[in-house]
Amino acid sequence: MNKKMSILMFSGDYDKALAALILANTAREIDVDVTIFFAFWGLMLIRDSNKLSDEDKTAAEKMFANMTPKHIEDLPLSKMNFAGIGKKMLVGMMEDSDTPPLSAFMKGALNKGVNMKACKLSCEVMGFSEEELLDEVTVVTAEDYLRDALESNIQLFI
Amino acid sequence: MNKKMSILMFSGDYDKALAALILANTAREIDVDVTIFFAFWGLMLIRDSNKLSDEDKTAAEKMFANMTPKHIEDLPLSKMNFAGIGKKMLVGMMEDSDTPPLSAFMKGALNKGVNMKACKLSCEVMGFSEEELLDEVTVVTAEDYLRDALESNIQLFI
Amino acid sequence: MNKKMSILMFSGDYDKALAALILANTAREIDVDVTIFFAFWGLMLIRDSNKLSDEDKTAAEKMFANMTPKHIEDLPLSKMNFAGIGKKMLVGMMEDSDTPPLSAFMKGALNKGVNMKACKLSCEVMGFSEEELLDEVTVVTAEDYLRDALESNIQLFI
Repeated sequence: MNKKMSILMFSGDYDKALAALILANTAREIDVDVTIFFAFWGLMLIRDSNKLSDEDKTAAEKMFANMTPKHIEDLPLSKMNFAGIGKKMLVGMMEDSDTPPLSAFMKGALNKGVNMKACKLSCEVMGFSEEELLDEVTVVTAEDYLRDALESNIQLFI
Repeated sequence: MNKKMSILMFSGDYDKALAALILANTAREIDVDVTIFFAFWGLMLIRDSNKLSDEDKTAAEKMFANMTPKHIEDLPLSKMNFAGIGKKMLVGMMEDSDTPPLSAFMKGALNKGVNMKACKLSCEVMGFSEEELLDEVTVVTAEDYLRDALESNIQLFI
Repeated sequence: MNKKMSILMFSGDYDKALAALILANTAREIDVDVTIFFAFWGLMLIRDSNKLSDEDKTAAEKMFANMTPKHIEDLPLSKMNFAGIGKKMLVGMMEDSDTPPLSAFMKGALNKGVNMKACKLSCEVMGFSEEELLDEVTVVTAEDYLRDALESNIQLFI
């Protein structure tokens, strides 16, 4: 199809990550190129829980790294308080309707060749090094994101 | 004008719904085609309060259906806690400035021929059937959304 | 480059404002035209703290004007409760990594000629007059936003 989709993944919420990764998987299935640029809270989606390290971190960065979700399945819902519904309930309803969990959509996206980029500035502020992220992720600048987004047919900020 | 706008309505907040429907109405007034794809919490905007049914629902789906807003005017604000301002205050200020309520913008969008689509996967997870949604809404897949969005001049994730 | 980016700034959060203004600054550095349309909570980014006035405001508008952040640096985080991390910590981490504060990115965007527009309807509902906003900001309609966005290569809703 020779079309491209660019997603700026700002949010670190389970439900929004689900939306982004379902779109990314679906796009690859119809041969659309996909790049996801993870920035700010979005970095929480691409931490490799086997490679976390406290080396070279300031005290605040260490605290931050330990307070935030270390695994994609641990992400909270954007609407925790929305009429009181919790993530447990949603995940249970996903199981009931045979919908795979978030981590399966991440695995699918990686297998299908979705381009995974992490925002350099966000990594610097939050104290994450490229070594702590999934192997498939490259750290790039906001300018790199923009140049890619300008050539895309769809751009979404999630 | 032969232009198209595609909105992925993910959020179920009163203020974000207002933004989406004002954009949709305005776009139709200048002859721009509009499709809104309601997913996740966005489904709360298109429930038909006269056609809700507990049939074929699991226990969790029943609870979910009853805990969530049944009418578009019952949606909460995305910023309930934002400096303590509540929805009541905003709605009052809308009245004071002669701005119609959200339901009027929904009615306008329906009358002006905005294409209303519901996400199939979201309906399945949340246990909503097409029969419970507004008559004008059709249930479609994420792939259908993407194909339409790829042909649009504007794509927004709200 | 003769390309354009259009941002609809709906949110009034410190972190989302940071994302929008970093993108705007970066785009200008590679000669991309940028328009930011501030609507709803986004108006909080462009109040001029030296020009606030209670004149011509209803009682509700006065209360609203006084309850909401008067300066861009006072904006809250979208994820105040996200694992308990507060804005203070983020701002501290920004300082540690020599990242300028939000107000510096706003100043940069103004200097680099980012087009700043405020949503007319939002101003009316919230009771803000053009006189209370930054000098560089013009009040325009949703239709003006749409016509500009339709001609842009990137459209983001933040």
